Amino acid sequence: MTANLLIVGTGLIGTSIGLALRGQADVVLADSDDAAVSAAVARGAGRLWNGNEPVAHALLAVPPREVAREFARLHPLGRARTYSHVASTQGAVQQAVETSVGDLRQFCGSHPMAGRELAGPQAAAADLFEGRPWALCPSPQTLPQTVAATRLIAKLCGAEPLVLTPEEHDESVALVSHLPQVTASALAATLLGRAQQDAAPVRLAGPGLQDTTRVAASDPDLWVDVLSSNAAAVAPLVRALAQELAAAADRLDELAAGPADSSSARSAQALSDLLRRGNEGRRLVPVKAGKHDRDFVLVQVGVPDRPGQLAGVLVSAADAGVNVEDVRVEHLVGRPRGVIELLVHATALARARAALSAAGWDVLG
Amino acid sequence: MTANLLIVGTGLIGTSIGLALRGQADVVLADSDDAAVSAAVARGAGRLWNGNEPVAHALLAVPPREVAREFARLHPLGRARTYSHVASTQGAVQQAVETSVGDLRQFCGSHPMAGRELAGPQAAAADLFEGRPWALCPSPQTLPQTVAATRLIAKLCGAEPLVLTPEEHDESVALVSHLPQVTASALAATLLGRAQQDAAPVRLAGPGLQDTTRVAASDPDLWVDVLSSNAAAVAPLVRALAQELAAAADRLDELAAGPADSSSARSAQALSDLLRRGNEGRRLVPVKAGKHDRDFVLVQVGVPDRPGQLAGVLVSAADAGVNVEDVRVEHLVGRPRGVIELLVHATALARARAALSAAGWDVLG
Repeated sequence: MTANLLIVGTGLIGTSIGLALRGQADVVLADSDDAAVSAAVARGAGRLWNGNEPVAHALLAVPPREVAREFARLHPLGRARTYSHVASTQGAVQQAVETSVGDLRQFCGSHPMAGRELAGPQAAAADLFEGRPWALCPSPQTLPQTVAATRLIAKLCGAEPLVLTPEEHDESVALVSHLPQVTASALAATLLGRAQQDAAPVRLAGPGLQDTTRVAASDPDLWVDVLSSNAAAVAPLVRALAQELAAAADRLDELAAGPADSSSARSAQALSDLLRRGNEGRRLVPVKAGKHDRDFVLVQVGVPDRPGQLAGVLVSAADAGVNVEDVRVEHLVGRPRGVIELLVHATALARARAALSAAGWDVLG
Repeated sequence: MTANLLIVGTGLIGTSIGLALRGQADVVLADSDDAAVSAAVARGAGRLWNGNEPVAHALLAVPPREVAREFARLHPLGRARTYSHVASTQGAVQQAVETSVGDLRQFCGSHPMAGRELAGPQAAAADLFEGRPWALCPSPQTLPQTVAATRLIAKLCGAEPLVLTPEEHDESVALVSHLPQVTASALAATLLGRAQQDAAPVRLAGPGLQDTTRVAASDPDLWVDVLSSNAAAVAPLVRALAQELAAAADRLDELAAGPADSSSARSAQALSDLLRRGNEGRRLVPVKAGKHDRDFVLVQVGVPDRPGQLAGVLVSAADAGVNVEDVRVEHLVGRPRGVIELLVHATALARARAALSAAGWDVLG
């Protein structure tokens, strides 16, 4: 008997792939952590692999730094015809495999653009990959049948396979994931540095600081690994941002020092240009399903800060058939009143406002 | 007859102050925009000022750049005994008043730490200032009775008056509001710059980029004014952040270039240190009412992306008496499933999880 797929590593991603393939493929599972593989089997992600059973394809869902070692261990045993991995950086992993094994014909890098802040088989979900891009990053050596096997897994998981070179992939995640992480961490670190001199200013913080620093709470150990393995792609972006900010600091210095003349007008113009480019860049950020900010509008509702208000507002919206794409609660520090912001499609705005007002809510604006 | 208070400028802040003082003071209103003052009168924020009636105190709720001109116009008429303003920067306004009028004895700067993204009298709310800090920024010349009148307004509005020098105030808002704005704008501008070369990476964006760039959508004209009037305080913070990022870029370059030796271990250690300082800085950011992230924990619920799911989850939480402090909806682009994150106090975690599970929700983790 030949299983269709061996998944090595039953964390969040490996177990989710097993769950997604349930009923579509015969999946066997392995993990160096017995508890993890038992949990994945118990959740129905596949059967326990006995270590000998041959498989059509082996998917290595282990941390980036372990992929090459795992491939070097499994490849000589000849249990699988083709191999893939799902690590969040591609170039460094491919290089490590090239160094340790050399032969990349049966090996294809890939990266499903999915995940969550939770980890482990318990957090896995069968629909984690549905509709999500799944980067396929074959090397020039990788055989077509190896790419085809990897693509099939992505398709069976409901994802949209997308062929990129490892370099293209690493450049992409450097921009949309790794740069924002470094930015938020550096901003929060700057806040810390100032607050150590004087803690008073932080009392005045509002939602702008909240949002901009949110991902600064991420796990440092995980992120040192991610940044280290993608350092070449992240470095120039961080440097470009540093230069943008250094230029802004120069313009601010000029405005602080100079009289209101044509030179200060040029400095103000440069800041205005930065803010406008920021507007434009922000409009590129997808909100949902390939849609962007410009398709959505905010409805703001003022509510007293008591349990159940948010639920009440959303029940009223649901009653009117309005799909709330996103919701934000702005708690003003120390105030007994909040503003609930509902993001709705522009075409639903009038209906949403009318329905909420009719239900007695304080619709603002 | 002498009114207690003249409010000049019936936008969001001026009208909200009038509404907050309703029943507590005799308030008269003025605005160069007839429609704005009519709307404020209609909302019950005060009576229309006839231009001659003497008042105890005049509060100038006009944009920062108009405060000095308005004071210079009103002061010679002798209609008010004392004056204050509520502009979001203090030093530049005080300097402009000193230049144009000279006499600051009857003049006190102030700034309620409240507001919202909406503007105008329609968005005003009587409880906008409740429990919020309200900075009082007298000059050394300002007479005690001028400060007392300003403080009384803050108290009657339910705010917590807090005496700061104009410099302390401007340093505080530079850190908690103006720096995050410049950061988000520069990050989004960097994104724009890269996306103009190649738009593909943005397809892979997730909630990290969303949050970090949110305030980049702010009004450029407003922000050029704010940044210009507080340039001296903002410049060194933006420069410190630029240096933090330039150092991170150096460490990333070292990691990209170097072999895995003791030198690259030092570079990784420096990045780890940045990420850890980011964690620490993030913990300083107030979530609500002086509480911080560490008091709150997330409950994550997986839901299909259909109308009413969010309302249903919140109804279940409200039924169990759980106060949801904040809520986030993580829509994974292109996926028919979302994760709802509820922020609850740590003491309510077990109850929240049990109640949601009992109600049939898919509680994650």
